[in-house]
Amino acid sequence: MTDQHTTKAYDRDLEALGRQIAEMGGLAEKMLSDSIDALINLDETLGRATAAVDPRLDALQREIEEAAILTIARRQPMAVDLREIIGAIRISADLERVGDLAKNIARRAVKLAGEPRLPRAMIGLRHMGEVATLHLKEVLDAYAQRDAIAARDVWERDKDLDDLNDSVFRDLLAFMMEDPRNITFGTHLLFCSKNIERAGDHATNIAETVYYIVTGGNLPVDRPKGGEVNAGEGASA
Amino acid sequence: MTDQHTTKAYDRDLEALGRQIAEMGGLAEKMLSDSIDALINLDETLGRATAAVDPRLDALQREIEEAAILTIARRQPMAVDLREIIGAIRISADLERVGDLAKNIARRAVKLAGEPRLPRAMIGLRHMGEVATLHLKEVLDAYAQRDAIAARDVWERDKDLDDLNDSVFRDLLAFMMEDPRNITFGTHLLFCSKNIERAGDHATNIAETVYYIVTGGNLPVDRPKGGEVNAGEGASA
Repeated sequence: MTDQHTTKAYDRDLEALGRQIAEMGGLAEKMLSDSIDALINLDETLGRATAAVDPRLDALQREIEEAAILTIARRQPMAVDLREIIGAIRISADLERVGDLAKNIARRAVKLAGEPRLPRAMIGLRHMGEVATLHLKEVLDAYAQRDAIAARDVWERDKDLDDLNDSVFRDLLAFMMEDPRNITFGTHLLFCSKNIERAGDHATNIAETVYYIVTGGNLPVDRPKGGEVNAGEGASA
Repeated sequence: MTDQHTTKAYDRDLEALGRQIAEMGGLAEKMLSDSIDALINLDETLGRATAAVDPRLDALQREIEEAAILTIARRQPMAVDLREIIGAIRISADLERVGDLAKNIARRAVKLAGEPRLPRAMIGLRHMGEVATLHLKEVLDAYAQRDAIAARDVWERDKDLDDLNDSVFRDLLAFMMEDPRNITFGTHLLFCSKNIERAGDHATNIAETVYYIVTGGNLPVDRPKGGEVNAGEGASA
């Protein structure tokens, strides 16, 4: 374990894992941001292009998982080093889920292209998208810097996204009640809002993983939760 | 690797992992089935009891992940044996997600208790719940038996659940359009329907993992997908 040769090979493995996570993170962040742009502008072309990125993210997750496990089998790292590798597996799983959610939003943007009715909730959705994308960016930076304090900071702010989601839900319900012709469109947007909130939950999961990698400890189980119990309740991140 | 002592210790590790997965599987199956019963009967007590099981499932997932990784570090298994362990990690992640989805349905059941308006879609939701629970049970049996053919069979039938989801969505949209007072209730049920469909997607993921464990190969990327592109479109499993 401690001989020079093994240690160097192990460091190289870890560096390669870090690079793959960085690539996945960049892709997931762009997919999320593009999917929300596609939705807000009802941009069919951008929606299709964004959804098409998802298989790359799925493949990267599998590569990371396999590389991580081969590293463990080959190098037999100590407990403290195992945290890095377990962390890589967990973060790649969260990033893959963010990609799925972005794909879902992008597909709905394609479906909705040409829709003439634009509810007030669109403003809230745009804001939610900005906050979720920022949280994801910040937590990936915290991972790159191994910064537990920055990670905890993102984790604490997830509450903001829950509150925004509740507000968008209320706006969308009002929009649907105004006119039954709004219901189908409104339903798509309800799911988009939920997807953005769940993308934020994954940023929060990543924050927990960064905290675990750096400190070996866990953030409290009960994270500060915003939001009332309404139709948007029950995030299943 | 090949000496008797290591092999026996490794077998014991694998058996322990198998038992933990079986426990998780049993819990996830019961949570899903109970959450749907709570929803159909708008049973507040059962809803609360079901949601309360979720932390146990989360803890089991962490235990399985850690045990799996320690096994790899300690025993340095060959590639073929690694599949068993990678499989355990993947299946526990899917079961944890099923628990999240069931908790979400259970919480909505609590919210909706006392609701006097029962749409026709409730019949479809009950049917979806039965199908998803059956798929989960069958795929866990396929895992216990290491039966790739049975796993593939579940995987092929996920299409049925997508079709049922579409039909429930249409019923729910009609219900909401009938009377604006149905919209909030209908929205909760839309999310429940989506959650059940996603639980089925996780059963499908588990089927893919069982196939991979047994054969070393992967099922085709494009699994048979039912369902039209409607408001329920875009499963994000």
